[in-house]
Amino acid sequence: MIKKTLKVNGIDRTVVVREDDSLAKVVREQLKLTGTKVGCGEGQCGCCNVIMNDKLVRSCVTKMSKVKNDASITTIEGIGTPDAPHPLQKAWTLHGGAQCGFCSPGFIVSSKSLLDKNDNPDREEIRDWYNAHRNACRCTGYKPLVDATMDAAKVMRGEKDIEELEFKMPADGRIWGSSIPRPTAMAKVTGTIDYGADLGIKMPDNTLVLALVQAKVSHANIKSIDTSAAEKMPGVHKILTYKDVVGSNRINGLVTFPDTNLGDGLERPILCDKKVFQYGDAIAIVCADTESNAKAAAKKVVVDLEELPAYMSAPEAMAEDAMEIHPGTPNVYFNCKIEKGEETGPIFKDAAHVVEDDFYVGRQPHMPMEPCVGFAYTDDNGNLFINSKSIALYVHNFMIAEGLGIAEDKLFIAQNPTGGTFGHKFSPTTEALLGVASMATGRPTYLCYDYHQQMTYTGKRSPFFINLKMAADNDGKLLAMESDWSVDHGPYSEFGDLLTTRGNQFIGAGYSIPNIRGNGRTVCTNHGWGSAFRAYGAPQSEFASEVLMDELAEKIGLDPFELRYKNILRPGDTMPHGQKPEVYSYEEMMDILKPKYEAALKKAKENSDDKTKRGVGISLGMYGCGADGPDPSECAIELGPDNVVTLFNTWEDHGQGADIGTLGTAHEALRPLNVPPKKIRLALNDMATAPDSGASGGSRQQVVTGRAIVAACRALLDGMRKPDGSYHTYDEMVAENLPLKYSGKWTTPCTVPDDKGQGEPFAVYMYGIFLAEVAIDIATGKATVEKMTCVADIGKICNRLATDGQIYGGLAQGIGLALTEDFEDIQKHSTLKGAGLPYAKDIPDNMEIVYVENERPEGPFGAAGCGELPLTSPHAAIINAINNACGVRITRLPALPEKVLAGLK
Amino acid sequence: MIKKTLKVNGIDRTVVVREDDSLAKVVREQLKLTGTKVGCGEGQCGCCNVIMNDKLVRSCVTKMSKVKNDASITTIEGIGTPDAPHPLQKAWTLHGGAQCGFCSPGFIVSSKSLLDKNDNPDREEIRDWYNAHRNACRCTGYKPLVDATMDAAKVMRGEKDIEELEFKMPADGRIWGSSIPRPTAMAKVTGTIDYGADLGIKMPDNTLVLALVQAKVSHANIKSIDTSAAEKMPGVHKILTYKDVVGSNRINGLVTFPDTNLGDGLERPILCDKKVFQYGDAIAIVCADTESNAKAAAKKVVVDLEELPAYMSAPEAMAEDAMEIHPGTPNVYFNCKIEKGEETGPIFKDAAHVVEDDFYVGRQPHMPMEPCVGFAYTDDNGNLFINSKSIALYVHNFMIAEGLGIAEDKLFIAQNPTGGTFGHKFSPTTEALLGVASMATGRPTYLCYDYHQQMTYTGKRSPFFINLKMAADNDGKLLAMESDWSVDHGPYSEFGDLLTTRGNQFIGAGYSIPNIRGNGRTVCTNHGWGSAFRAYGAPQSEFASEVLMDELAEKIGLDPFELRYKNILRPGDTMPHGQKPEVYSYEEMMDILKPKYEAALKKAKENSDDKTKRGVGISLGMYGCGADGPDPSECAIELGPDNVVTLFNTWEDHGQGADIGTLGTAHEALRPLNVPPKKIRLALNDMATAPDSGASGGSRQQVVTGRAIVAACRALLDGMRKPDGSYHTYDEMVAENLPLKYSGKWTTPCTVPDDKGQGEPFAVYMYGIFLAEVAIDIATGKATVEKMTCVADIGKICNRLATDGQIYGGLAQGIGLALTEDFEDIQKHSTLKGAGLPYAKDIPDNMEIVYVENERPEGPFGAAGCGELPLTSPHAAIINAINNACGVRITRLPALPEKVLAGLK
Repeated sequence: MIKKTLKVNGIDRTVVVREDDSLAKVVREQLKLTGTKVGCGEGQCGCCNVIMNDKLVRSCVTKMSKVKNDASITTIEGIGTPDAPHPLQKAWTLHGGAQCGFCSPGFIVSSKSLLDKNDNPDREEIRDWYNAHRNACRCTGYKPLVDATMDAAKVMRGEKDIEELEFKMPADGRIWGSSIPRPTAMAKVTGTIDYGADLGIKMPDNTLVLALVQAKVSHANIKSIDTSAAEKMPGVHKILTYKDVVGSNRINGLVTFPDTNLGDGLERPILCDKKVFQYGDAIAIVCADTESNAKAAAKKVVVDLEELPAYMSAPEAMAEDAMEIHPGTPNVYFNCKIEKGEETGPIFKDAAHVVEDDFYVGRQPHMPMEPCVGFAYTDDNGNLFINSKSIALYVHNFMIAEGLGIAEDKLFIAQNPTGGTFGHKFSPTTEALLGVASMATGRPTYLCYDYHQQMTYTGKRSPFFINLKMAADNDGKLLAMESDWSVDHGPYSEFGDLLTTRGNQFIGAGYSIPNIRGNGRTVCTNHGWGSAFRAYGAPQSEFASEVLMDELAEKIGLDPFELRYKNILRPGDTMPHGQKPEVYSYEEMMDILKPKYEAALKKAKENSDDKTKRGVGISLGMYGCGADGPDPSECAIELGPDNVVTLFNTWEDHGQGADIGTLGTAHEALRPLNVPPKKIRLALNDMATAPDSGASGGSRQQVVTGRAIVAACRALLDGMRKPDGSYHTYDEMVAENLPLKYSGKWTTPCTVPDDKGQGEPFAVYMYGIFLAEVAIDIATGKATVEKMTCVADIGKICNRLATDGQIYGGLAQGIGLALTEDFEDIQKHSTLKGAGLPYAKDIPDNMEIVYVENERPEGPFGAAGCGELPLTSPHAAIINAINNACGVRITRLPALPEKVLAGLK
Repeated sequence: MIKKTLKVNGIDRTVVVREDDSLAKVVREQLKLTGTKVGCGEGQCGCCNVIMNDKLVRSCVTKMSKVKNDASITTIEGIGTPDAPHPLQKAWTLHGGAQCGFCSPGFIVSSKSLLDKNDNPDREEIRDWYNAHRNACRCTGYKPLVDATMDAAKVMRGEKDIEELEFKMPADGRIWGSSIPRPTAMAKVTGTIDYGADLGIKMPDNTLVLALVQAKVSHANIKSIDTSAAEKMPGVHKILTYKDVVGSNRINGLVTFPDTNLGDGLERPILCDKKVFQYGDAIAIVCADTESNAKAAAKKVVVDLEELPAYMSAPEAMAEDAMEIHPGTPNVYFNCKIEKGEETGPIFKDAAHVVEDDFYVGRQPHMPMEPCVGFAYTDDNGNLFINSKSIALYVHNFMIAEGLGIAEDKLFIAQNPTGGTFGHKFSPTTEALLGVASMATGRPTYLCYDYHQQMTYTGKRSPFFINLKMAADNDGKLLAMESDWSVDHGPYSEFGDLLTTRGNQFIGAGYSIPNIRGNGRTVCTNHGWGSAFRAYGAPQSEFASEVLMDELAEKIGLDPFELRYKNILRPGDTMPHGQKPEVYSYEEMMDILKPKYEAALKKAKENSDDKTKRGVGISLGMYGCGADGPDPSECAIELGPDNVVTLFNTWEDHGQGADIGTLGTAHEALRPLNVPPKKIRLALNDMATAPDSGASGGSRQQVVTGRAIVAACRALLDGMRKPDGSYHTYDEMVAENLPLKYSGKWTTPCTVPDDKGQGEPFAVYMYGIFLAEVAIDIATGKATVEKMTCVADIGKICNRLATDGQIYGGLAQGIGLALTEDFEDIQKHSTLKGAGLPYAKDIPDNMEIVYVENERPEGPFGAAGCGELPLTSPHAAIINAINNACGVRITRLPALPEKVLAGLK
């Protein structure tokens, strides 16, 4: 222990610290400046950046022993406040720099440090700075951050007034389609919004901090668990095992197809009882007074295991001699097929051109900047409240209530402000563990994963092993497609059957393929369990067909653009699953892209030499908005004092912008009332107050909940309308005893596909084309994406800032998926850097978006969803560009330099 | 548990709370907004004021169950920041509103709430507001707070620019004698300075919170202590009793006169072993994870006691049949006498006028707004660090080291920013308890008293029972004085012998009395132990002589002013203890006061009627600056980078202004260097870094440490001086390898009085005259002070804002001492309100100070001390005024309405 005097944000502070504690811990937990975030906790993300004595430091890896007495520390709180923001903070909101916002404080502190040294950096200098200081962002693709810093620098140099960084309300007062910053933006950029770990620091003093005892092997029988030594450790209140779980101790994986799924969906234990199924599985929970005490005690729990063979991929688990991972359920527990048009066997026999290849898209890790975190508590009425990063509140209630042993109507899940999920929080992670602990102790409990836990004990994108064949006629017109895919879903089936049917829908998506035969299957393995991830199923499916289309073009001798142009969906055509698109946008989009494509090809050729080869690739992307079949959503609205309108829904926010989505849609629907945006209050994502709007997955919320919002707003308008067409005020409504609260509901007019994979699962789709321009370093095989272009039809746009951000961010994740990201090697890939997270210089500053805004008949004010589109197939365009550049065809991702180099040799 | 959403300082916050927790606890401990202070914790002081939904509330008594969802809460942090202060905050600094500063956030929030409702209040409306909302201040006498609010309101109304609330540096750059705000002012008024409880919230997470098991009786033998049930309580880490104390378990009361004191000064146990000596004595310490767990467990400790007769006053303990409270030591354990001039017996026999009366000044409680609080920790080298409100760092080290069982050089005490002590922290309170706990557990420990503990288990002003006689000749010239006084010092002797000798020095102070005989004694009782309190010994001693002077005047038929004027010390005269004053100021001061006195008398007469009688009283005050005899101090100074000068000393700060005292004195001494105030850094009050400047008692620091500061500054100047008379810069000093750190020492050229009480104990004195104007409500007997005037000679003034504040605050405490304050009834008097704390309306807005700045030869730049003077005898002036108004002579304080009423009847 040592006492330090520090000057923190200009204020003299005295603090007693452990010398080996990090500066981040002291700043956050002792000085209570929670604007500084801890992401990875190992110096790889920059979320914890502070300025110490004029130097930018990552506070999570800065030990207090290295902090000099009287050091000057500047945190985000010292840079600006919501009332008096710094130009960087203003610019960050104006340019949409904060999506999930978790990295924003670190980036802004970093940018401040840069501008302190150089108030006139160019874009590349800014990108270099971010790269050098490991500032990582998983949402924005970095471009908006550079835009913001450039703009703020202008203000700092006096070339621009800070007022110019303020969004200007359109003259007509309409915010739909505008770039108004999201309501939470200022709180995010000033560090004043509390994420889960910040709320954890602000819990009552009787809160127990949890640490998990986890499996370090991937498959084993549990012989015994001995907690006796751990129970004697300092600060330990209780240690919980499966014996302390009141309920069935199983997470319900929600089998989508109970008639054909051979499992029951109840494979995942909350706390392991008989077996360990994957690395990281939770075996016990230590409840203690502090995190360090809990973690120290967790190490003292002795688990006696009988290790079993671990099946780390679908082929291994499908081997004949493989044991059943879940005894009684075959490792291949679900099969589906697609049959469209005629039998394909004869067609392939006669076709002018046939191509076939095998494809593999691996287990892309989500890598949000914020690891899983949450807290729980009970009330006097036996209700259990769990607050987490859940993006599926009502779904999770159903998935965990029985396992916990609590009635569904006694369990209320709410979402904390969330630092990114990208889908993995469609799976319960912390929720059931927190529930067990609060139920067993009667105390508030808090659990925050470290980044190793985040990487190893959360779901991953499920690898697809795909064999794909296409047949075309002499002109290159597609005749038939045959597909076979095996989905490695890890040990837990959650939505694995549903995911497998994504192969039906998205292998060959975008094209008119009259005849299709295919078979897919879901395979249980011992690798990381499969969880939702942006574009769920499409990046695997469309990778196969988009790369194979290039192979087909090559075989025929057609330009890949031309081959696609021949085969895109045109009026009357149907998708692989037999549905007619609600709009036919591809031709218009390809026409827009064509000159850009040709210019890019020309430029690539001109700029290639012996050292660096440049190439261009394209791909089509497509995804549905919603859950398959009838997809309901509900929203409530209430008129309150001062005519403030409050909206209640569970449009869970990964960072994509549930706040601006709800606000933009409601504001448009309420235009007859002329409600200013500030008078629309959002009460989102708490089961205790909001009705069930469904989960935030599959880009469904803008469409499905968007429609529910419109319905609710209209119900309110109807309730407020006077006979003369004008509207009652709140006071008048109260005076006349009129209802103030209204509900809006909407369900997609869709059907679940039949057993041949045919149907109309979605009412609204997103369509896009990707153009990738890459450079290959011939000496190393390293591919660099120099530009990405996305022509997107996501319908009418609610908020431009949000959709731009989604597309930039999705493209960045596509680049990662193509080139670096992986979670195959549990040890090597369990850090952000190890798993190949793209930093600023890995993402091109040059990203272009062209919107084609075809109005969607079923979308609210014509809108489709947006978030999944940019990650459907951009990686395929990159892989195609690599081939275009240097003739190397990568079919197994990621395209690491060594793979490209091997291809070159 | 319930989750609440709150808008805190304009920011949306979500927080999970216990419904019966207070808003203050949630704001401070969960939301970490420690600008809101908790003083009494029972709604009597307003330190915890916040604005909730436009209404001012005391957050310490506002349960969370009463806080509505979405309530808007404004705390001091939401009113302004050091960078962007609110006009109230600026005005507070300009007018010296923050002394200790602990009440400042609450007052400013309160004033903000008033101005929100009425931006043009008059002074009385402001005072009414403070009274109605129970905003209490113990330092300032309220007047500066009203001044500040009036000025801020002008800015709010646009009648004044906020810039006008900025202190203007004098043209000559000299701050000595100016009203520059103290360096800590802005931090205090913005809630950004961390007091002990704020630092407690910011301790590392392994910190143990302590709760005391305390005696509820005043005298008992301890038969057994059973901690077994308590040890099983939740969150308990360890329970400590005297058996866990490594050392002697005794606080060393530092006997001043070992030859004559019959005790050894080792009466006070750290944790009671054999006996309980007074109510509140600590018997055990519970070390737990949270305060509530610690307190709950403390209730489960079973202490078996054999109750003994409790002696609750000196006469009771002096009774012949009284048992020895400390077996082996007589209850009367110290005697002293004064002999000046000739035997007084014969003189009294022959004198023209003789008066005699008995006087009693009771156990005035200090009532700082901040209760005792502190923390402790150890380092790897076996050093123990205790941070508390200690105003006697090196003294406390010596007082507790042996008791704890640690070497003195391993124990480092530091002072936290302190919310008032007024002297009681000259006694160890939390220090040894924290030390025991950190030594026994090896963990950081934290202890904060609640206000009942603050009232019952800290030292009090010791009552003096005085019999006094004076003899005068026909003209009213004093001939002789005989005195007898018994000091009730409670069970612990700490400085009790020294205090008793104050009767020698200050009974009859201010007058030339050629012949004196007197006897004093210190008596051990079972009431609250005696501790230092502003003017230590003088309020008791001077009360007797100043009231008796009025009785003498009445007897002779002289005006009290005239009688005093005849007898004041004039050149050549000596004080009761034989010393010649270093300056003779009384005549000049009385000449200044005379017209004011006469005008007041006239006005009082004019404004008296049957319902209300008005009267005027005066008194002389006098006190020495320093400890008796040679009083040393040391200060260090260091030149650092950027030519910043750092001063190291232990000028402990009650709130009186150690910061501005050190800065003002050093700035003046360093004028040859032209150092701007901002480049003078203060590193005060930590034994780990600062040399021993002695304790902050007896108004010694400005004089004694002031001289040490001057010496240190001069040593630095000598070290920096070049042959040509100019000065080296820091860089030059480093380049030439010259020493950067220098020490300055000074010791008062004084002697300890002899066994007849004669000597020269102090080098510098403060002199003053008080004029009180009171109104008596004849129906109730209630006395109201309508104006106080103080003519003060405290030498040359270092900082006018600080001295004004000291005098206003001292006068206010004098009013409390005269009329309301008491700690006789342990239960009734153990709250602020119960103990008679004066609120705004109890203190006149009309307080006038006239300075007579006679330069002190031994004072630094001519300065004397200041803090004790205003509480030497203002209560005597008030009591004299009551007699003047209605003929009722009160000799036993406080002059409660019922006593006055009884006198009237």
